[in-house]
Amino acid sequence: MPHPVIIDCDPGHDDALALLLAAGDSRLRLLGVTTVAGNQTLDKTTRNAQRILALAGAGDVPVAAGCDRPLVGELAVADYIHGPSGLDGPDLDVPVTPVAEEHAVELTRRLVTESAEPVTLIALGPLTNVALLLRTHPEIRSRVRRIVFMGGSTERGNTTPYGEFNIVTDPEAADIVVRSGLPLTMVGLNVTHQVRATAGIIAEFQSLGSRTGRVCAELMTFFAGAYLRNFALGDPPVHDPVAVACVLDPALVQTVTAPLAIELAGTCTRGATVVDLHHRTGRADNAQIAVGIDVEAFWRTLMKAVSRYT
Amino acid sequence: MPHPVIIDCDPGHDDALALLLAAGDSRLRLLGVTTVAGNQTLDKTTRNAQRILALAGAGDVPVAAGCDRPLVGELAVADYIHGPSGLDGPDLDVPVTPVAEEHAVELTRRLVTESAEPVTLIALGPLTNVALLLRTHPEIRSRVRRIVFMGGSTERGNTTPYGEFNIVTDPEAADIVVRSGLPLTMVGLNVTHQVRATAGIIAEFQSLGSRTGRVCAELMTFFAGAYLRNFALGDPPVHDPVAVACVLDPALVQTVTAPLAIELAGTCTRGATVVDLHHRTGRADNAQIAVGIDVEAFWRTLMKAVSRYT
Amino acid sequence: MPHPVIIDCDPGHDDALALLLAAGDSRLRLLGVTTVAGNQTLDKTTRNAQRILALAGAGDVPVAAGCDRPLVGELAVADYIHGPSGLDGPDLDVPVTPVAEEHAVELTRRLVTESAEPVTLIALGPLTNVALLLRTHPEIRSRVRRIVFMGGSTERGNTTPYGEFNIVTDPEAADIVVRSGLPLTMVGLNVTHQVRATAGIIAEFQSLGSRTGRVCAELMTFFAGAYLRNFALGDPPVHDPVAVACVLDPALVQTVTAPLAIELAGTCTRGATVVDLHHRTGRADNAQIAVGIDVEAFWRTLMKAVSRYT
Amino acid sequence: MPHPVIIDCDPGHDDALALLLAAGDSRLRLLGVTTVAGNQTLDKTTRNAQRILALAGAGDVPVAAGCDRPLVGELAVADYIHGPSGLDGPDLDVPVTPVAEEHAVELTRRLVTESAEPVTLIALGPLTNVALLLRTHPEIRSRVRRIVFMGGSTERGNTTPYGEFNIVTDPEAADIVVRSGLPLTMVGLNVTHQVRATAGIIAEFQSLGSRTGRVCAELMTFFAGAYLRNFALGDPPVHDPVAVACVLDPALVQTVTAPLAIELAGTCTRGATVVDLHHRTGRADNAQIAVGIDVEAFWRTLMKAVSRYT
Repeated sequence: MPHPVIIDCDPGHDDALALLLAAGDSRLRLLGVTTVAGNQTLDKTTRNAQRILALAGAGDVPVAAGCDRPLVGELAVADYIHGPSGLDGPDLDVPVTPVAEEHAVELTRRLVTESAEPVTLIALGPLTNVALLLRTHPEIRSRVRRIVFMGGSTERGNTTPYGEFNIVTDPEAADIVVRSGLPLTMVGLNVTHQVRATAGIIAEFQSLGSRTGRVCAELMTFFAGAYLRNFALGDPPVHDPVAVACVLDPALVQTVTAPLAIELAGTCTRGATVVDLHHRTGRADNAQIAVGIDVEAFWRTLMKAVSRYT
Repeated sequence: MPHPVIIDCDPGHDDALALLLAAGDSRLRLLGVTTVAGNQTLDKTTRNAQRILALAGAGDVPVAAGCDRPLVGELAVADYIHGPSGLDGPDLDVPVTPVAEEHAVELTRRLVTESAEPVTLIALGPLTNVALLLRTHPEIRSRVRRIVFMGGSTERGNTTPYGEFNIVTDPEAADIVVRSGLPLTMVGLNVTHQVRATAGIIAEFQSLGSRTGRVCAELMTFFAGAYLRNFALGDPPVHDPVAVACVLDPALVQTVTAPLAIELAGTCTRGATVVDLHHRTGRADNAQIAVGIDVEAFWRTLMKAVSRYT
Repeated sequence: MPHPVIIDCDPGHDDALALLLAAGDSRLRLLGVTTVAGNQTLDKTTRNAQRILALAGAGDVPVAAGCDRPLVGELAVADYIHGPSGLDGPDLDVPVTPVAEEHAVELTRRLVTESAEPVTLIALGPLTNVALLLRTHPEIRSRVRRIVFMGGSTERGNTTPYGEFNIVTDPEAADIVVRSGLPLTMVGLNVTHQVRATAGIIAEFQSLGSRTGRVCAELMTFFAGAYLRNFALGDPPVHDPVAVACVLDPALVQTVTAPLAIELAGTCTRGATVVDLHHRTGRADNAQIAVGIDVEAFWRTLMKAVSRYT
Repeated sequence: MPHPVIIDCDPGHDDALALLLAAGDSRLRLLGVTTVAGNQTLDKTTRNAQRILALAGAGDVPVAAGCDRPLVGELAVADYIHGPSGLDGPDLDVPVTPVAEEHAVELTRRLVTESAEPVTLIALGPLTNVALLLRTHPEIRSRVRRIVFMGGSTERGNTTPYGEFNIVTDPEAADIVVRSGLPLTMVGLNVTHQVRATAGIIAEFQSLGSRTGRVCAELMTFFAGAYLRNFALGDPPVHDPVAVACVLDPALVQTVTAPLAIELAGTCTRGATVVDLHHRTGRADNAQIAVGIDVEAFWRTLMKAVSRYT
C-alpha cells in the first residue's frame, strides 16, 4: 500500500527530479505539493511545480502556494544556480492545472487531517511553510509520521562556508522544525554531494527517448554549467531526490541518530546545521542524519520512475 | 463613525482593563478578540478573554485562540505577576460564549478582509499571532491601517534589564512586525510606567458600585501585590490600556518617529527594543514610539468606559 | 594619608577635568597616568594627558602610552565630540614632560607592585589597558584595591541606544574587567548625565582668574557646542570627574550592589552594560553601581581642586 | 642558515613531538619557548615544556610562562585527551632549567626585537599570548615574518561540531591574530587528521632505541588510547608537529590562500574557523590555509629529528 506524502518545494532543478521521482514511484502516494520562496520567488517556484506535475501527467495533485519570504530576514534567491526562471534549460511550455485557493499551510493541514494514515512531509526548500504549519496547527502533529528535509550538512555548506542554502535562507524555520519533537530526517550536502549527474547519467536520461527524459537531460545540463561556474565542480550534485529516495526505500540511505541544532546567532555561521556526531555536547538526540547512500541503487530507482513518463 | 479594531491579547490583569476600555468606548468597534500564550498558557488566556467579554456584555464579539508558544524558543509565563489563573483576584465565574473554531490568524484574516474600512490591530501580548498573520497572508497588508502594540521600552525592561515581557517572549515575532513596513506604534514601559493604579484609582473603581467596577478594583489590588513583591514597586503600572487609549484618542499619547529594531542575538539583551531616538545609527524610521501620556485624561477615559458596565 | 591612584584615560574634555581633580585634591596621590585610544587616537590622547598634567604643574607624574586599539574590532574615535585634537577649544601649547618608555601595562604593573598600599585604578576610557594588565599579570590582583571606571549606563547609552562610548569601543576588555572578581565600581551615564556644565559653571571656572580656570571654561564651552550639535542637549554632562569624585569621597556618589554583565554578542546592543538592579537574572553581584550623586558637593569639590592651580 | 622561530605551546602530547621536531631539525633555530594554558593549566604546560626541552638536551632554550586563561571566558582543559599531567604516559622525571622571570609576552617581544632576522612565531595552543603580544607591542609587527598556528579546521572540529580546541578555547585571541594583517598560516584538523600515529609509527619510535624514542612511543600509546575512548578513532592524529613541518619545509604542506574569519557570536559554533574556500563571502584573503600534506615525507622528517636525540 503506497505511503502518503506531501512535498513542500521551491523548484529548482533538483526539486524537479524529486517531484518526478515522487509522482512516478508506486511506493508513494503524492497527496499534494506546496511551494515556498527559495531557489526563486514564490510565483516562479509555484509555476515550476505546476509545470513539472503537468509534465508528469500529475495535474490532479493539488498545488498550493505558501510563504513568499523567510520568517526573519530577507529572501535571497539562488538565480545563479537555477537561472532567472528557477528552472532554466528545457522548454516547459505545458498547460497547467490552476493552483489551489488555499494557502500551503491550510492545504497541508487539510490533507494531513483527511488522510487515513499518518503522512510524511518531504521538505525540499526553506522550511518556512512547515514551521508555520507546526506553530499555527500544533494539533496535526499526531498526523505527521515523519518530516524528511533536504538541507544542511554535517560538513561544509554551499551558501556560506558552513551554511547550506535551504537552512541559511530561513534558520528560524529550521529551528522550529528541528526542535518540534517530531520524527525527523536530515538529508544534507554530506550525502547529496555523493550523488552527481555525470555525463553518463545525462546520456541515460536522453536515451529514455521520452519528452520527460529529454527535459531531465536538459535540466541537468543547465545545472552542470551552473555548478561549474559557481563552484568549479563538474557533475552537479542532485540534492532533493535523495530526500524522496530516503522515504521510498530507507535501505537506500544510511542514517545515524544525533543531536541537531541550528545556529541562529552566528555572525559568519548563521544557518549552520550543527550535528553532534560524537555526542560530545550533552544535547539530546533529535534527528536521523543521513550519512551514506547507495548511489547506484539511487540512480536505478530514479531512472525507473522517470522511465514511466511519456 | 467608530474605528474598527481587533485586539490580540493574553489576559492578564492589564489586558482585562484594555478589553473593558475597548468594548466600552463608543469611538471603537471591537470586531474580534484573539488570544496568544504569554502571561499564561493559551487555554487560560483564552478563557480569561472570554470571561472579560462576558462581564462586559460583549459575548457577541468573536474570540479565537491562536498560538500556544512563541515562534522560537520556549514559553515562560508570568504567573508571578498574574497568578495561576492569569487573572487572579476577583471571582469571574460567568457564563461565556464559546470560542470560535477558526484559528486566531484565520479569524483576523477574515475580519480584516470583510471590513469595509482598514482595521487597526491592537496587540497586547507576544506578537506571535500578528507575525504569523503577516507571513501567512501578506495580501491583507493593505487592509491593516496600523498595528499598535504594547511592548518594549525606550529605557529599561521588566523581564530582563533591557527586555520587556511581550517582546522577550517572542523576539522573532516582534522582528517580523517591526520590519513589516506597516504603520506601527510601540507603546512601551517608558510610557506605561507613568500610568499607575494608585489606591485612589482602586477606590474610584470600587465606588462605581457595579460588578465590573468591583472586578477592576480586585484585579488592581491583586496586581499591586504582585508588583510590590516582584519589583518593590507600589502602585502597579497599567500597561495594556495605554495602547487602546492611543487608538481611541491620539491626543492622549505623545509619540515620536524613530528607527526601532529588535535585538535577536544578544546573550543578555535578547528581546530588547532598540529605539534610536537621536537617529545616530543610520537606520530608517519605521515606527511611532510613544514617549508621553496625559495621565489624568487617560484615567478619565478609562473610568468613563468602565462606568458604562453593570 | 592620601589614597594612591593610577588613572587610565583618553583625554578628552571630561578626562581633562578628571585629571585636574585628581592631581589637585590632596586626598589622592596620583602615582601615574596611562593612556589608551578612545576619544581620539593614542598619540593624541597621550599628548593631551601630558599637556593637562603640565598645565597642572604635575609634570613629575609619569605618563605611559598603552593600547592603540581595542582588543577586538576597529577603533572609532569620538572626534564629533572632542574635535580633531581630542581636546579642542583652549590653546594648550605648554612644554610637556616626555612620555615613559614603558608600556602603560608595564608602568601600571610596576607602580602597583612598588606601592606600599593597594592602589585604586581609575579608568576613564575604553578598558583595553586594564584588561591587558589583568590577563598579563594576574599576580598584581592583590595589589589592586578597587577598579573604578567611568562607562556604561543602567539606562540608555550615548553611542548606540543602549551602549556608552567607552564600553562599546572595547566590550571584550570590559567583560574581562567585569568578570575579574576584583572590587569594582561602575560610574555610568545614569549618574554622569546629572552633572552638567551649565553656563553658571563655565562662568565660575572663568571667574577663578587663573590660566587653568580659563582652560576649563574653554574646554566646557567647546564641549557644550558638541553636545548641542550631536544630542540637542544643552549643558553638557561631565562624565569622567565623577569617577574620580567617587574615589575621593565615597559620600559624594550613592551606589548599589548588583550583577553587571557586558553584552558581547548583540547585533544592536553590543557593549551594553546589563545591570540587574532587581536581581531577577539569578547572576551574582559583582559590582557597585553608581546610582546617585550630590551634584552641588561635586562641583564644590571640583572647583576647589581647580582653584589650586595657576 | 637556520630559520629563527619561537614556539608558543601548551604541551600536550602532540606539542611534545612538535618541540622535539623544532629542536632537532637543523633548518630551525629555536630562540625560545613560551607556554599558555590550554591542554592543561599553565603550571603544567610550562612544566611539560621544560621537561621536553630537557629531554632534548635543549635546556638552554629559554622558557617563559604566559597567560593562565583565555582573554574572555573560562579555561576548560583537555585532560580527557592529555591526562591529569597534560603529558601522561612516559616517565619524564628529568632535571629542568628554571623558567624565565619574564612573561611570555615580554620574552617574545625581546627575542623578536633582538633577532637579526625576522622571526616566525609557531603557535600550538590557544592564541592568547600571541594576541596579547600584538595588542601590547604592535611595534614588533615588522619583526615577525609569519605566524603559523595549529588550530581550526576547514571541515568539522574536535571540541564542538565545528570548533577545534585551540580556537574554541580563546576565540577572541584567534580573531586578533586572524585580523592582524600579518602573514598567517592556519594548519587545521583537515590536514592534521591525515597524519596518524599508527602502530607502525609507534614501533618505529620504539626501534630508535633511545630514551627519547621510547618517550615518543609511550606518548603516542597514551594518545591512541585517549582518541579511541573519546572519538572511537584508532591511530591518533598528530596535530602540532605539522605546523612545525610547514615552517621547516613548505613543500611538505600544501596551502591555498583564502578569507579566514573566527565566529565569535554563535551559540553552537563559537570558535569556528570560517574559511571561504570558494571566495563567495566577498571578504578579502587574509591567510594561507593548509589543505594537504605529504604524510610519508612528514614522518621521515620527524623520525630524522627524533633520531638525533639520546
